[in-house]
Amino acid sequence: MSLLIKNGRIITASDDMVADIRVDGETITAIGRNLPTDGARVIDAEGLLVFPGGIDPHVHLDMPFMGTFSSDSYETGTRAALHGGTTTVIDFILQKQGSSLKSALEEWQSRATGTAVGDYSFHMAVTDFNEETKKEISHFVENEGITSFKTFMAYKGALMIDDRQMVGLMEEVKRCGGLVTVHATNGDMIDYLVAKHRAEGKLAPLYHYLSQPEVTEAEASERFASMSRYTGCPGYIVHLTCEGALNAIREAAKCNQHVFVETCIQYLLLDASLYEKDFEGAKWVMSPPLREKKDQETLWAGINQGLVNVVATDHCPFKWEQKLMGKEDFSKIPNGHPAIEHRFELLFSEGVQQGRITLNKFVEVASTNAAKIFGMFPRKGTIGIGSDADIVLLDPDEEHTISADRHNMNVDYSAYEGWKLKGKVKTVILRGQVAVDNGTCSVQKGYGQFIKRNKVTDHI
Amino acid sequence: MSLLIKNGRIITASDDMVADIRVDGETITAIGRNLPTDGARVIDAEGLLVFPGGIDPHVHLDMPFMGTFSSDSYETGTRAALHGGTTTVIDFILQKQGSSLKSALEEWQSRATGTAVGDYSFHMAVTDFNEETKKEISHFVENEGITSFKTFMAYKGALMIDDRQMVGLMEEVKRCGGLVTVHATNGDMIDYLVAKHRAEGKLAPLYHYLSQPEVTEAEASERFASMSRYTGCPGYIVHLTCEGALNAIREAAKCNQHVFVETCIQYLLLDASLYEKDFEGAKWVMSPPLREKKDQETLWAGINQGLVNVVATDHCPFKWEQKLMGKEDFSKIPNGHPAIEHRFELLFSEGVQQGRITLNKFVEVASTNAAKIFGMFPRKGTIGIGSDADIVLLDPDEEHTISADRHNMNVDYSAYEGWKLKGKVKTVILRGQVAVDNGTCSVQKGYGQFIKRNKVTDHI
Amino acid sequence: MSLLIKNGRIITASDDMVADIRVDGETITAIGRNLPTDGARVIDAEGLLVFPGGIDPHVHLDMPFMGTFSSDSYETGTRAALHGGTTTVIDFILQKQGSSLKSALEEWQSRATGTAVGDYSFHMAVTDFNEETKKEISHFVENEGITSFKTFMAYKGALMIDDRQMVGLMEEVKRCGGLVTVHATNGDMIDYLVAKHRAEGKLAPLYHYLSQPEVTEAEASERFASMSRYTGCPGYIVHLTCEGALNAIREAAKCNQHVFVETCIQYLLLDASLYEKDFEGAKWVMSPPLREKKDQETLWAGINQGLVNVVATDHCPFKWEQKLMGKEDFSKIPNGHPAIEHRFELLFSEGVQQGRITLNKFVEVASTNAAKIFGMFPRKGTIGIGSDADIVLLDPDEEHTISADRHNMNVDYSAYEGWKLKGKVKTVILRGQVAVDNGTCSVQKGYGQFIKRNKVTDHI
Amino acid sequence: MSLLIKNGRIITASDDMVADIRVDGETITAIGRNLPTDGARVIDAEGLLVFPGGIDPHVHLDMPFMGTFSSDSYETGTRAALHGGTTTVIDFILQKQGSSLKSALEEWQSRATGTAVGDYSFHMAVTDFNEETKKEISHFVENEGITSFKTFMAYKGALMIDDRQMVGLMEEVKRCGGLVTVHATNGDMIDYLVAKHRAEGKLAPLYHYLSQPEVTEAEASERFASMSRYTGCPGYIVHLTCEGALNAIREAAKCNQHVFVETCIQYLLLDASLYEKDFEGAKWVMSPPLREKKDQETLWAGINQGLVNVVATDHCPFKWEQKLMGKEDFSKIPNGHPAIEHRFELLFSEGVQQGRITLNKFVEVASTNAAKIFGMFPRKGTIGIGSDADIVLLDPDEEHTISADRHNMNVDYSAYEGWKLKGKVKTVILRGQVAVDNGTCSVQKGYGQFIKRNKVTDHI
Repeated sequence: MSLLIKNGRIITASDDMVADIRVDGETITAIGRNLPTDGARVIDAEGLLVFPGGIDPHVHLDMPFMGTFSSDSYETGTRAALHGGTTTVIDFILQKQGSSLKSALEEWQSRATGTAVGDYSFHMAVTDFNEETKKEISHFVENEGITSFKTFMAYKGALMIDDRQMVGLMEEVKRCGGLVTVHATNGDMIDYLVAKHRAEGKLAPLYHYLSQPEVTEAEASERFASMSRYTGCPGYIVHLTCEGALNAIREAAKCNQHVFVETCIQYLLLDASLYEKDFEGAKWVMSPPLREKKDQETLWAGINQGLVNVVATDHCPFKWEQKLMGKEDFSKIPNGHPAIEHRFELLFSEGVQQGRITLNKFVEVASTNAAKIFGMFPRKGTIGIGSDADIVLLDPDEEHTISADRHNMNVDYSAYEGWKLKGKVKTVILRGQVAVDNGTCSVQKGYGQFIKRNKVTDHI
Repeated sequence: MSLLIKNGRIITASDDMVADIRVDGETITAIGRNLPTDGARVIDAEGLLVFPGGIDPHVHLDMPFMGTFSSDSYETGTRAALHGGTTTVIDFILQKQGSSLKSALEEWQSRATGTAVGDYSFHMAVTDFNEETKKEISHFVENEGITSFKTFMAYKGALMIDDRQMVGLMEEVKRCGGLVTVHATNGDMIDYLVAKHRAEGKLAPLYHYLSQPEVTEAEASERFASMSRYTGCPGYIVHLTCEGALNAIREAAKCNQHVFVETCIQYLLLDASLYEKDFEGAKWVMSPPLREKKDQETLWAGINQGLVNVVATDHCPFKWEQKLMGKEDFSKIPNGHPAIEHRFELLFSEGVQQGRITLNKFVEVASTNAAKIFGMFPRKGTIGIGSDADIVLLDPDEEHTISADRHNMNVDYSAYEGWKLKGKVKTVILRGQVAVDNGTCSVQKGYGQFIKRNKVTDHI
Repeated sequence: MSLLIKNGRIITASDDMVADIRVDGETITAIGRNLPTDGARVIDAEGLLVFPGGIDPHVHLDMPFMGTFSSDSYETGTRAALHGGTTTVIDFILQKQGSSLKSALEEWQSRATGTAVGDYSFHMAVTDFNEETKKEISHFVENEGITSFKTFMAYKGALMIDDRQMVGLMEEVKRCGGLVTVHATNGDMIDYLVAKHRAEGKLAPLYHYLSQPEVTEAEASERFASMSRYTGCPGYIVHLTCEGALNAIREAAKCNQHVFVETCIQYLLLDASLYEKDFEGAKWVMSPPLREKKDQETLWAGINQGLVNVVATDHCPFKWEQKLMGKEDFSKIPNGHPAIEHRFELLFSEGVQQGRITLNKFVEVASTNAAKIFGMFPRKGTIGIGSDADIVLLDPDEEHTISADRHNMNVDYSAYEGWKLKGKVKTVILRGQVAVDNGTCSVQKGYGQFIKRNKVTDHI
Repeated sequence: MSLLIKNGRIITASDDMVADIRVDGETITAIGRNLPTDGARVIDAEGLLVFPGGIDPHVHLDMPFMGTFSSDSYETGTRAALHGGTTTVIDFILQKQGSSLKSALEEWQSRATGTAVGDYSFHMAVTDFNEETKKEISHFVENEGITSFKTFMAYKGALMIDDRQMVGLMEEVKRCGGLVTVHATNGDMIDYLVAKHRAEGKLAPLYHYLSQPEVTEAEASERFASMSRYTGCPGYIVHLTCEGALNAIREAAKCNQHVFVETCIQYLLLDASLYEKDFEGAKWVMSPPLREKKDQETLWAGINQGLVNVVATDHCPFKWEQKLMGKEDFSKIPNGHPAIEHRFELLFSEGVQQGRITLNKFVEVASTNAAKIFGMFPRKGTIGIGSDADIVLLDPDEEHTISADRHNMNVDYSAYEGWKLKGKVKTVILRGQVAVDNGTCSVQKGYGQFIKRNKVTDHI
């Protein structure tokens, strides 16, 4: 089966050209002017932007939590992602403290395999680094195609590792050719503030926000950068939200160090004033919390400075009844919000259409950099000869409004209800198949493949 | 006339793929697997790297100086550039204080038009900003395709403008959609030190170096960044050399500001110990001077941090007899060194082959970023459909040694004599013509075209 | 004639003790419990704070300006100072460009000698540094007791020196054992903005403020610090007003450098909202202008961090009719405001009584540091054996209100009209004479002496 | 009993004067010229410098450790201190994890009471902050005169508290009017490196040094400053050693924050090259370890910038046979070195005589600041009326050589063996008693008093 996408304006992280794209089987085989049809199904892309499929390297699907699970399965989550132009996601396997990495991998595979509609990969979250864990690292890198290891500097007793474990992990991951990623907030400080607010009877969602002040993230980001510098291990900070944390990375730059930085779409667009809406604020209870307007400006600037490399989502949806678990106590609200479906369009509309970033930068942070940093390039993340034919056709002029009534995620509210966007995903191709066309998904559960990833370097 | 470049490994600023490239007339029309020959001349690129033509945005050809001229004409200079894989250069028109920009343009055109072998453009150096000059800016942007305006914070009485002129120029250039570039060193401090050393009888080339300490560049870079921030005018620092100056830019990043930074190949590879060689040091007398090893580390890191965007040359060759004008007084040595021919291969060999930068980063700083920043993209700076077919085929494994005996620049010494490089330019195509093949140039004087450039933004 | 000041609470920059002070002739001879009266006039200081006389190292008395003079003569200015607890001031001799330092000294001496009521010294403002000026520096240090040399980075064509002159002056002053002080704002940028605002018909006092944005001061402070570091010459920034400038000094601290910093009382207490009062804002037209609340916080913090060493006034009063010279054009408003009389009480009331600084810190920044930095210590600036008996008795509990109706300065408005202060100067002793008691001055015109100053170091 | 110290040059943190001092009983009652003898014992101080008694706020006497004790008892330690001009020390009570602060106080009192020769106080080291500990804080501040609370960010499982405890402690200490001090190094990172080096068989003292790289201290200092800023609790970093850590404090200054900083005499004078002497390096095994020459420069600069407030010792002596416990494993070497006796003279000789600091600064960092920060001022730390007559007479010209043969500390080696000093303590007076005169101590065991301390503020 072949496709010929005609006359679109093709945008990659670097290029911008009007041309046809030919797809044979799962891959792109030619890009050019007036390519012959030669039996291919023709898709007219005149007037449309043609992007590589979006990559969201930070999602949590079907994640076990307090006896329940995040509400999007690999099926519903990756299907929603496809609707919004994201063709590949990277989820997180969470090691259980006291157990092996391998057993966690098996548990996650049991939920994902045969279920995903879009392509996916895994990060391995190391929550208990010890002599046994250490032995498993090289296996993951060499054999499982899982080359990034997530760490938590928060959630003591559940997910957090201390700095001794962190440095040990970094040395082993570096040796094996992997990357350490981090949730960089000072868990001890946050635990103190949570307990303090609860003891004082301050139980509304607003206190979730006030329990994670900017300093907790700035401090931990600086600390992580110091350990990355000392060990020489490539580092990546997930969901960086604020000026203080980015300034820590800017300061680290003076040591000739490069730490990769990911922010999420919500930190670019939403701010903490949403927590003033009484319990409705629970919709945006996530960690780190939303920040201030000045932090949004910092993050947009960071993208243009080349210091913020990736825009992800930390998609971790919970239905309203799940959120209600924390009605009387913010600390019991499941953390996370739904965004997997709209990241790509939101970033296009608010970033490109508002003149904050260029088209090339849009592709870079929405797709290409994630592919490069996490070892999926050039299979994923670009429109190039031999790459997977993961292609998004977007009409830059079509306006639409986000609503839970219409979205495809398995969650009964939208974090962006009523937002008007300019630019709509029309057609999405995944490995040569038209997966979504005009709002209809035509690939099935199980079409999504697990993507093995390569070793990484600290240069991209 | 058409070309078909077969089976090369094509590298752009973002992509990496093995494919064929078809060229029809002056432009690239298709990239793909197994493209049909269809009457085209076939060039076998198997085993070769295929890059967009290099762009050197900082050269001085046939530049009038103390009654003589820099020794490479537009002919010899651009031909040497082609030999080394650089297909486009940007030269500097120097306004004469008291005269108009237009008259300077005409003078420069008189030397360049019909002479260049490779493509070229001009920056306009504003050395006297006043009410009359102000009126000329928009004409250059709108009609002449010259959108970048160079300034000097040094060379008082000849080229330097003061901060009042700088801010005034920035406001006008911003209004017109241009970019201000700068030689950022504190000219007053340097003048003091030059005079002091001369008064003390310290006349060797070493004192050229000691008259331009790091602080003179760090200070001026910070000052320029401040003015750029205040006015909102996009800024670009040419030939940044040192840690102090790059740290000023890193600090400016905390103000959510982005200033483009160019370094030159010599600052990445050579250091100030060369000035200890008595008068032989005159070979490397340039401004700013070579710095320390720690500055080289800073610059390589800056490239990988995305803060150093361009690697140029400041090519400004003088023959040894011209250098001898300063035999008795370093301040009379013509400033500049020859590098236009070897920038591309040096950066490949020392950067990519030594593992300091990736192949994509190589293309980004040797070609693409200059095209984007200076408004020549996507015509120049990439291998894309519809782009000029400026293409370099490089054999990554071939070793060779630099020598004045073999180089094509019109100068009787090499600043890199005896350097062994790994990676050699084999074939260079300029606008669809094979311009250089196996060391033979087959395009003529006058083949080079003046490239009009577009307005710029501060995002790339 | 002897005095015995009984039972006061004596505060120096370091000490805090209840004791008697004995004065014989002009100097302090004993401090102790229950000192014998022994023929001395007894002054009861029970319940009062006893401070060293205040030192204001930044005043402009009888300063020629646009055909007129600042409105306080050495007589009225130093008398007003005495009323407010300031026993010594340092004024500025302004070299006329093209003339010698010596001729300027003579001009200033002609106005000051025999006129001053309180003690005074001079800084020498070097506005034209050349080979002739250079020869005069050592004479001033060695013979005239004038060891500090003021420079202007603003007011081009009148007072400003360029960086070449600055570095040259610094090297000579360092060699001679002096100190370079600076008005650190980027004069070129300010000149541009003034001209721009005038051209746009923006002529109100508000545009004085908008013509000197924070960046103009931050930039120049950083530049001055760089030159001071390079030359090794001790440096002192006068009237530093803002966060950006102090951060430049904090950053310089990382280079193991110490630059002395002076702020003025108005920058601690007043802010730029005063410029919104139409032409009444002219009362506070001074350079640099008043800043923001956040800058006040920075300055108070800087004092407690030990980085802001001195609180002066830049007292330069003009009567309302003089201010009216700029009614139609802010650039014609004489710069300066009256503060010499109230600095000491304002700083006590707003600093000590509000808990922002300690009593010791109050003395340090209001008196002692100026004496040490400028080479008058221990003759001035402390209550010590052998020191001049310059002593202020202040009732910490007495409240009073500032008003032009009651002040002693020769100016018909107060910049602090209606301010309620807690803490009032009751008795002021200058070199053993009761100069002011309960609001009455009992020393005559000519009592004030010129104070020769010693060489300085960069440590205090 | 009265004393009259005649004609000395009296130096305080601020003053410098030649005068007599009269002492009646334990306190100073008068300072002046030609004071009457009036029955007092006369001490001729002509030609001598007269300082307030030195204060060493960081010592460990009779400290339990691995079944043994630091080798100086309160008797031998405070007597040695007196010989060297230090009249007051502050020791550390170490809470035992799981036990109360009160029980630790009692244990320490049992060793100190009736034993000390010189005056002393205690810091309370909180190693286990919980709800019970929290209740004890106010008692210590209000009733025990112990207002400073030491914390350890290292030594996990023994002394370390985590950041949650730290923030909780800070809030309580702030509420009570106390100060939190800190050993700021990243214990987790150090534990990792110690274990790694041991596992690799790297067991020499050099690896003690390599297990505590600069980053471990810089990181922790920044983290502590962040927590201090967030809580508003006054903070004090003990034994800061390096550029990275001081730069963290300089950076914190930009947040308008002031954190007190103590360094120790060894970090100013010794460097890590001593660890290259095989096991002899054990003499200087302490935590943090000695650093580089560049760090010494930073610390001297920090003193003159007013950012380093105190020079202490961390005196914690162990005899050679005790050091030998770590012969086969650096991690078993008792940490600490002897310095209590020579701090004052070393700082005078290397600081004042070498021109690095002024006489006033010497007194400030060797005595006054410690008294002020820790709430003993003005009883201790100055020569003022009503202050304890703790006075040191030092001959600035007398040269002598340090040797274990002659020192008074109970330890069989000197860390400064053979150092030649210029300036010798001749006579030491403690609370009106001549305690040491010409090398003979004439006060007895038990003469030393426990000094209750006042609440603190964050301003001095």
